[in-house]
Amino acid sequence: MVPVEISARHIHLSQEDSDILFGKGYQLKQLKKLSQGADFAAEETVDIEVNEQEIRGIRVVGPSRAETQLELTFADSYKLKLDIPVRLSGNIAGTPGFRIIGRAGVVVKKEGLIIAKRHLHISPEEAEKYAMKKGDLISITCGELRKTTFHDVEVRVQAGFKFTAHIDVDEANACGLKVCGVGRLIL
Amino acid sequence: MVPVEISARHIHLSQEDSDILFGKGYQLKQLKKLSQGADFAAEETVDIEVNEQEIRGIRVVGPSRAETQLELTFADSYKLKLDIPVRLSGNIAGTPGFRIIGRAGVVVKKEGLIIAKRHLHISPEEAEKYAMKKGDLISITCGELRKTTFHDVEVRVQAGFKFTAHIDVDEANACGLKVCGVGRLIL
Repeated sequence: MVPVEISARHIHLSQEDSDILFGKGYQLKQLKKLSQGADFAAEETVDIEVNEQEIRGIRVVGPSRAETQLELTFADSYKLKLDIPVRLSGNIAGTPGFRIIGRAGVVVKKEGLIIAKRHLHISPEEAEKYAMKKGDLISITCGELRKTTFHDVEVRVQAGFKFTAHIDVDEANACGLKVCGVGRLIL
Repeated sequence: MVPVEISARHIHLSQEDSDILFGKGYQLKQLKKLSQGADFAAEETVDIEVNEQEIRGIRVVGPSRAETQLELTFADSYKLKLDIPVRLSGNIAGTPGFRIIGRAGVVVKKEGLIIAKRHLHISPEEAEKYAMKKGDLISITCGELRKTTFHDVEVRVQAGFKFTAHIDVDEANACGLKVCGVGRLIL
């Protein structure tokens, strides 16, 4: 069994972009600690403009990353009338751009908008135990109300990763998962 | 392989309710023929009030049914802050009520709001061929971008049913299905 967490739409910011959006040297305030490493949901939100439409109140997830990345859902892509690629976090080359409106300034990104690919976080020690390696695709069965098996869940191995699968809100709705839950690994 | 169709939120109306909402003896106008029997998406839409919130422009699906039934999604249930049960069409006892606003009148329903349970339409002849019977639960694998297996797909057998599985918009988003597609039956 593996814990399954649900990712709502959110944005990761580079320090450079954070400086423009919130002011030079601004430190994000932690609203809620998340499961992986130092990740936290910040108190701060930003507004986004993409394909001439606006989405207000996108939650910032800290700490700062090397590159700014906006994670939306298929449901959003229909509203925005925009094709958003399904990518693993960090793999943003050639993805759509967007405009970020913060309280101190505005940033225009040429790329960085993705739908997050379902994935499994695992430490090197646990990966060895389960005979998994980075990039493996596994399946996870979730949900009681609407039992669903998610295939092609990509394995991400990193020291300190907590053994947890991440799916997005569309996927959580499909399997009737309302908050975090557990799934059955199919190796 | 089985054709898979996506149901967006919609409402079925009894003739009695249709008379109040649109005027006595009103005939719904067909916008688009649907795959099952005489079903069609109507030109008419209604507004809904549920849990003190409004959803505008809910598509009516004709022809009239014995009982009025509103089909929303998990995504809607969060926006409405309302627990909506997952039910097979027609099984509405004890489900939440809602208010329907039409151009000629208003109807208050004490029950009838469901999230549609994923299901397979099949004729008696084809059911026999696949060794299926009414109420069987099967699995269907869909989607290339986000391969997903939907379990507990309930089999509905009726003369004239076209062999087709129905999933809702949350489920379609989870498997990356943008329009209708095909799935693989797992018996």
